[in-house]
Amino acid sequence: MSTVPLLTNEEAEAIPAVKSVFDDIRATRNSDFINNFWRGLANDPALLKRTWEALKAVMTVEGALDPLVREMIYIAVSTANGCSYCVHSHTAAAKAKGMTPQQHGELLAVIGLAGQTNHLVTSMQIPVDVEFLI
Amino acid sequence: MSTVPLLTNEEAEAIPAVKSVFDDIRATRNSDFINNFWRGLANDPALLKRTWEALKAVMTVEGALDPLVREMIYIAVSTANGCSYCVHSHTAAAKAKGMTPQQHGELLAVIGLAGQTNHLVTSMQIPVDVEFLI
Amino acid sequence: MSTVPLLTNEEAEAIPAVKSVFDDIRATRNSDFINNFWRGLANDPALLKRTWEALKAVMTVEGALDPLVREMIYIAVSTANGCSYCVHSHTAAAKAKGMTPQQHGELLAVIGLAGQTNHLVTSMQIPVDVEFLI
Amino acid sequence: MSTVPLLTNEEAEAIPAVKSVFDDIRATRNSDFINNFWRGLANDPALLKRTWEALKAVMTVEGALDPLVREMIYIAVSTANGCSYCVHSHTAAAKAKGMTPQQHGELLAVIGLAGQTNHLVTSMQIPVDVEFLI
Amino acid sequence: MSTVPLLTNEEAEAIPAVKSVFDDIRATRNSDFINNFWRGLANDPALLKRTWEALKAVMTVEGALDPLVREMIYIAVSTANGCSYCVHSHTAAAKAKGMTPQQHGELLAVIGLAGQTNHLVTSMQIPVDVEFLI
Amino acid sequence: MSTVPLLTNEEAEAIPAVKSVFDDIRATRNSDFINNFWRGLANDPALLKRTWEALKAVMTVEGALDPLVREMIYIAVSTANGCSYCVHSHTAAAKAKGMTPQQHGELLAVIGLAGQTNHLVTSMQIPVDVEFLI
Repeated sequence: MSTVPLLTNEEAEAIPAVKSVFDDIRATRNSDFINNFWRGLANDPALLKRTWEALKAVMTVEGALDPLVREMIYIAVSTANGCSYCVHSHTAAAKAKGMTPQQHGELLAVIGLAGQTNHLVTSMQIPVDVEFLI
Repeated sequence: MSTVPLLTNEEAEAIPAVKSVFDDIRATRNSDFINNFWRGLANDPALLKRTWEALKAVMTVEGALDPLVREMIYIAVSTANGCSYCVHSHTAAAKAKGMTPQQHGELLAVIGLAGQTNHLVTSMQIPVDVEFLI
Repeated sequence: MSTVPLLTNEEAEAIPAVKSVFDDIRATRNSDFINNFWRGLANDPALLKRTWEALKAVMTVEGALDPLVREMIYIAVSTANGCSYCVHSHTAAAKAKGMTPQQHGELLAVIGLAGQTNHLVTSMQIPVDVEFLI
Repeated sequence: MSTVPLLTNEEAEAIPAVKSVFDDIRATRNSDFINNFWRGLANDPALLKRTWEALKAVMTVEGALDPLVREMIYIAVSTANGCSYCVHSHTAAAKAKGMTPQQHGELLAVIGLAGQTNHLVTSMQIPVDVEFLI
Repeated sequence: MSTVPLLTNEEAEAIPAVKSVFDDIRATRNSDFINNFWRGLANDPALLKRTWEALKAVMTVEGALDPLVREMIYIAVSTANGCSYCVHSHTAAAKAKGMTPQQHGELLAVIGLAGQTNHLVTSMQIPVDVEFLI
Repeated sequence: MSTVPLLTNEEAEAIPAVKSVFDDIRATRNSDFINNFWRGLANDPALLKRTWEALKAVMTVEGALDPLVREMIYIAVSTANGCSYCVHSHTAAAKAKGMTPQQHGELLAVIGLAGQTNHLVTSMQIPVDVEFLI
């Protein structure tokens, strides 16, 4: 159902540039599971490598934002962009990182509210207050 | 430049249903400043009241998510929806709640990455892994 | 500020394929005013003609929907797509067709609510009820 | 397949804050049917209550816009936001409120046209005519 | 599962205004296959005719852009709009017009990069450089 | 007006990790001009570096797609995402790479048509033909 083939483990093993990324995904996540997104990207090993390295740098490296917070931001963007796969995969990741049902409920409430006020602002074409331009 | 008039303080004072909401915004925020969004909504006092009460419940009440995290989620949704006013107002709010430049940088990095992978997933039409459907 | 030049009346007069569309816009609307959208499209006379004829057929011909209702639907789509110009031009058109402030307020309320529930549905990935699939 | 559990009638009955909203939905709609959207929201009773009360106020109360017109505006926003569930549920609601095939066809025509001109305007970056800024 | 019935060949044959468009689609494409999009539009023969004639003029007539390039642009827009059907149908069309896996990979890379930088720009609210306004 | 400061040349020179990216942008483009996007990203040198290297790899390296075609795909995505800055900057880039007014007109025609049919498909919820799933 995808527009590109999803590489099997055997096919991935046979392409060194793919194998090395898949190995790194498995090592970084400490899991054998490679989800379909990477199997689709593997058709273009350079794109696979760039995308994985960016995701690894942004989502797994220690920083100023809690890893769970990053996943919730990811869910927020994916929702607004209507990416069903991304909502599913990052909600699963957020749960794996400890998101509680209460946190999930509050996340949904903020996402819904933002969706509402974004639309109200745009339909009213509200000009930015000078107080915000600093 | 908006498609509805933005009510001045004088006009707002003259409509009891608007005045009571503006008073509550000022009291809740401990500030005299009423930003343009509320001045536009004030043309429809019932919509103004519902929207403010929802925002107050979602964004200001104590809960499982840090208020700064809620603002960052708001920025994420507003970015994906392309709402310039909302990005400006909630970035200002996030800074007022203590968002550091490093946190801002990481927020942008997650938003950008999500934008990228959302598009990659959609153009490849990746099917959801059964592992995510639990 | 546009990415294509906006043709002046003089430039439009000099290109028969543009002039004939501009003449028809003026005759149909019973007004001399040609808004910037058409002046931009005029760089490609065939695109100008196709777009105007589609708009004329959809928005001005008598049908099952009131012309004002069509303008409100147009505003709704333009809001969700974040098209500032389109929100401005079709709100002006709706007001010219008699949209009252109360109707405008209700339109905004529906647009905002839909924005909210669209986001809630997508972040929850709600499956379509079989009752709706008929 | 949703990212939150969909509460069954039994589960909903057991939570007073959910039961009272479900009862009101049934009474307002004069039907026993509770669609999946509300079953998902029921995981967060406060969000359920706020959302239902907003929807009830905007969509069911008598006002300046015909209830069918409100449903068509809802479909328009939901389409532009790519919310499949929302398009299905509000198209079903519009048909239940009497939308004829001819009205549906005209609705689709306006939505499609707006989608087209929204894109043309944005790719040309057309500046707003001063005539629209009043 | 669609919100309108999809006309069968028999139903289409019985409506002259539909039959003539279906005949032209078959003749233009040199194929008996009529995809579901046209079967849905056939509920409104005037909309069917306008849409097909626009698509024929834009996508099949000789011009300054290679037909394969036009399909790739179509995929790009459809991805950003989250239209699953459109991504599938135009990816199939692009492959039929000779899109190689390498070209497909590069198309995906550009789409993903644009998705990323679009989001970064919007969340930073970068003002347009005067150098671009010429 | 941006939500982050735009680094001046002097500020950029003072941060080695920024200076080296700016130097590479100038060398790659054979121009002294650094547009605002990079000046905003420079607040986070790691994000600046990753983004520039991705853009350099995707947009400037020789490949299967013509550089002008890549710019046109970029414009298409940026339009659908409503990113005004991105439409301006990549239209300028496309013109610098030789895009003719006729090509621009055809690009706009495809973008507009895709916008239209994307919306029609989504509002009709057309199921994907099995013929496309190969």
